[in-house]
Amino acid sequence: MIKARVYACMNHPRPEGLNTFQRVLVLLIIASVTLAVLSSEPVVREAVGRHLAWLELGFGAIFLVEYMARVWSVGSQPGFSGVAGRLRYMRQPMAVIDLLAVLPFLAGISGAETMVLRLLRLLRLVALTKLARYSSAIRLVTESCISRRFELAFTVMLAGLIILVSSAALYVVEGDHQPEAFGSIPRAAWWSVATLTTVGYGDLVPVTPLGRFFAALTAFAGIGLIAMPTGILAAAFSEAFARARARGEDREGKA
Amino acid sequence: MIKARVYACMNHPRPEGLNTFQRVLVLLIIASVTLAVLSSEPVVREAVGRHLAWLELGFGAIFLVEYMARVWSVGSQPGFSGVAGRLRYMRQPMAVIDLLAVLPFLAGISGAETMVLRLLRLLRLVALTKLARYSSAIRLVTESCISRRFELAFTVMLAGLIILVSSAALYVVEGDHQPEAFGSIPRAAWWSVATLTTVGYGDLVPVTPLGRFFAALTAFAGIGLIAMPTGILAAAFSEAFARARARGEDREGKA
Amino acid sequence: MIKARVYACMNHPRPEGLNTFQRVLVLLIIASVTLAVLSSEPVVREAVGRHLAWLELGFGAIFLVEYMARVWSVGSQPGFSGVAGRLRYMRQPMAVIDLLAVLPFLAGISGAETMVLRLLRLLRLVALTKLARYSSAIRLVTESCISRRFELAFTVMLAGLIILVSSAALYVVEGDHQPEAFGSIPRAAWWSVATLTTVGYGDLVPVTPLGRFFAALTAFAGIGLIAMPTGILAAAFSEAFARARARGEDREGKA
Amino acid sequence: MIKARVYACMNHPRPEGLNTFQRVLVLLIIASVTLAVLSSEPVVREAVGRHLAWLELGFGAIFLVEYMARVWSVGSQPGFSGVAGRLRYMRQPMAVIDLLAVLPFLAGISGAETMVLRLLRLLRLVALTKLARYSSAIRLVTESCISRRFELAFTVMLAGLIILVSSAALYVVEGDHQPEAFGSIPRAAWWSVATLTTVGYGDLVPVTPLGRFFAALTAFAGIGLIAMPTGILAAAFSEAFARARARGEDREGKA
Repeated sequence: MIKARVYACMNHPRPEGLNTFQRVLVLLIIASVTLAVLSSEPVVREAVGRHLAWLELGFGAIFLVEYMARVWSVGSQPGFSGVAGRLRYMRQPMAVIDLLAVLPFLAGISGAETMVLRLLRLLRLVALTKLARYSSAIRLVTESCISRRFELAFTVMLAGLIILVSSAALYVVEGDHQPEAFGSIPRAAWWSVATLTTVGYGDLVPVTPLGRFFAALTAFAGIGLIAMPTGILAAAFSEAFARARARGEDREGKA
Repeated sequence: MIKARVYACMNHPRPEGLNTFQRVLVLLIIASVTLAVLSSEPVVREAVGRHLAWLELGFGAIFLVEYMARVWSVGSQPGFSGVAGRLRYMRQPMAVIDLLAVLPFLAGISGAETMVLRLLRLLRLVALTKLARYSSAIRLVTESCISRRFELAFTVMLAGLIILVSSAALYVVEGDHQPEAFGSIPRAAWWSVATLTTVGYGDLVPVTPLGRFFAALTAFAGIGLIAMPTGILAAAFSEAFARARARGEDREGKA
Repeated sequence: MIKARVYACMNHPRPEGLNTFQRVLVLLIIASVTLAVLSSEPVVREAVGRHLAWLELGFGAIFLVEYMARVWSVGSQPGFSGVAGRLRYMRQPMAVIDLLAVLPFLAGISGAETMVLRLLRLLRLVALTKLARYSSAIRLVTESCISRRFELAFTVMLAGLIILVSSAALYVVEGDHQPEAFGSIPRAAWWSVATLTTVGYGDLVPVTPLGRFFAALTAFAGIGLIAMPTGILAAAFSEAFARARARGEDREGKA
Repeated sequence: MIKARVYACMNHPRPEGLNTFQRVLVLLIIASVTLAVLSSEPVVREAVGRHLAWLELGFGAIFLVEYMARVWSVGSQPGFSGVAGRLRYMRQPMAVIDLLAVLPFLAGISGAETMVLRLLRLLRLVALTKLARYSSAIRLVTESCISRRFELAFTVMLAGLIILVSSAALYVVEGDHQPEAFGSIPRAAWWSVATLTTVGYGDLVPVTPLGRFFAALTAFAGIGLIAMPTGILAAAFSEAFARARARGEDREGKA
């Protein structure tokens, strides 16, 4: 019985929001991510480096306990009882993420300060995706995006095509003037992405009139690149909100 | 009776717009903000510094009188009469903002040219938020934003997650090449924000091929970051305009 | 009779597009603007400067004839006959624009190569606004923008407020470190506008952690600044297209 | 009979997606484009230049066979049989693109490493547009854009007008301070495009207060330039999705 209650406490969504256990878990995840971010800063590491190791150990222990509690309590659900059922649970994407989020802490215990560990530490950030388990708002947004995945994929393809063409154009036009910046299509692609997304770092800029003309075309294509997915999503959200209201799910839209 | 008429003059919205008193007040607020902005410029302070002090004193006196008139006249309203009622009024957010907008002028009289005062002077800008009391257009816009606060909050969370992941990626990939710019996740986050919002200052840019690849992913995520809230707001505004027209409130939409 | 036919030829819109006279006029306007743009380039002026003067004289003569034909032919319309009626026509905004577009050519004859003339030459660009007389598409777009002018004005006010607050914050935080760039609120406002609109030149960037924090907030506010007017316009266009289809005006929307 | 089956295999769309032949063709096109992009990089050319020539020859042979198979099999269709019918097919835009995509490979055999060849190689990228033959999503998006072409053209005209006016303003205001950057309207136009599209390279920035004021106006106009086409497309997509659902074509929108 306690198994089922632990499972419910950890997993059941409630219409009025997260329960106490889930809130504490969210705070712990945020705290551990903040710790990982701050401990990457040399100034912080020099000042309080020793305490960071203990904090990491503490977070690692808590998340390990949480992971084991999940695996244990899932046995109360039909289809997941016994060792075989739990192994099946552990192969589910969410459970794999939970485990990967624990691993860097355990590795941290062994004290290996290597590049591999730094990369593994990134996985701690994945723990944040646990938050994606909650809320009808998230479902509305993600469902809208998924329902228009083909239209959105088309704009991505279009963006790729524009990057190809504009990189090639700048390579031909500016390649001889600025070989370091535009001396090949892959090099020019860096400039092309920065221009098409309207980021515009300005580390590389065309200097010839023809190069600037193609750059202007790319920048205007960037406006279109913003407008198309935005328009697609706006239409998809309009549909999704209307459907949700028709189903009576959408408590917020009535305000 | 005069108390009630002063209250009405200061507070009652009219369908056809602001009355004379309210218009003068708006102009005075804009003038005082312009004065604060200009008097921060050393060139202006050197040229006409002495007159600025007198002007500030004048604005301070006017806004103090306005504040006292508000407190006095609110006594005509049920539930705010007497000293206790006025103290209750003074604790309301709008009344606190009114008071805070007067304080820096009074502090200006004492002549304390300190950093604290400069920070207090910022509060004068808060006075502008008084303008938020007017218009059904503002209500339409803010209500739409509020009705979709969960969806918008999700995009903010998503943006935070992308900043975390891209900062960590750039820290790992570029940290050794540019320790000053990407030597820790918090340092790389400055670059990540500038890229994700498509601002792209260009003070920090990745130089390695892998760093540029992650930068390109971040820049494209930035397009999505613009598209999602825009689409959500577009759908929310469509709903709000339709509702307003159904209620017959929306005089503008018929044009 | 000829007066009325000249008037119709110059002014009557046709459902199938511009007539021959109107097309030639559009081409002439574009050619004269191109001439003005190119003749500002010193390289071009040195090479073909003498011919430019003759071309300008030609354009001036044509546009003067066109202006006089408009004034003369308007006499065929009820309410504009006689000298008084024509003077009334000449006071209409469109007629004033037509006259102002002719003036710089006439001034060009006198050969005055002064700064004033350069400014007057700008007015030639105003001639382009003549194109705004055509098309139901333009009417749809402009009507949609106008029908939501209060909501759009609110976003402009919000943008102004954010610029004020972020300029003041950067002035306080960064003013002592970079007095040239952030030493006053007006100076910081230049940075603030570039950040809020996500242009991000990168000529001025905050260097302190706190300054960068406020800059990040401003950049994210910039995303909102793009999202709000876009959402308002998207909703307004949805309404306008639906209304136009209901009226049977919208031939394009059926495709 | 085999002719008709080859034609069907190459050209018939299937509701469930591409068939095996079409998938292989897409992969080959992407591979050949990747090859063209990478072989433009001097580092890559030095390392594996000899193998690239063989790879190009291979791709050229495959695409030539594909082209000939298309021309041969189209003879099974009514109206394209015989030499005359096939010549008519070869004049269709898609067939011309197919041929142009083969040409650079054939030219590559001759070993001419000239500028002309580099330009011809760009045409290989055009091969990607073959992908545009597929999917109802693409039709939805392109039809929406086309149905609002007049409104979108109006925003392009508006953008051109703003670039003209802001270039002229910056030329007049900043031309004497920075003759190299703003010394003529065409030169200032490069800055104007970068600002209006919110790219903001930062290679040229106004330095005078008046120049910065006009730059701020241009940047805010840029927000409008993003908002207008986005709003138009959002409304157009809403209509298109609703129409597609009414026709029962839109399998995705029901999710």
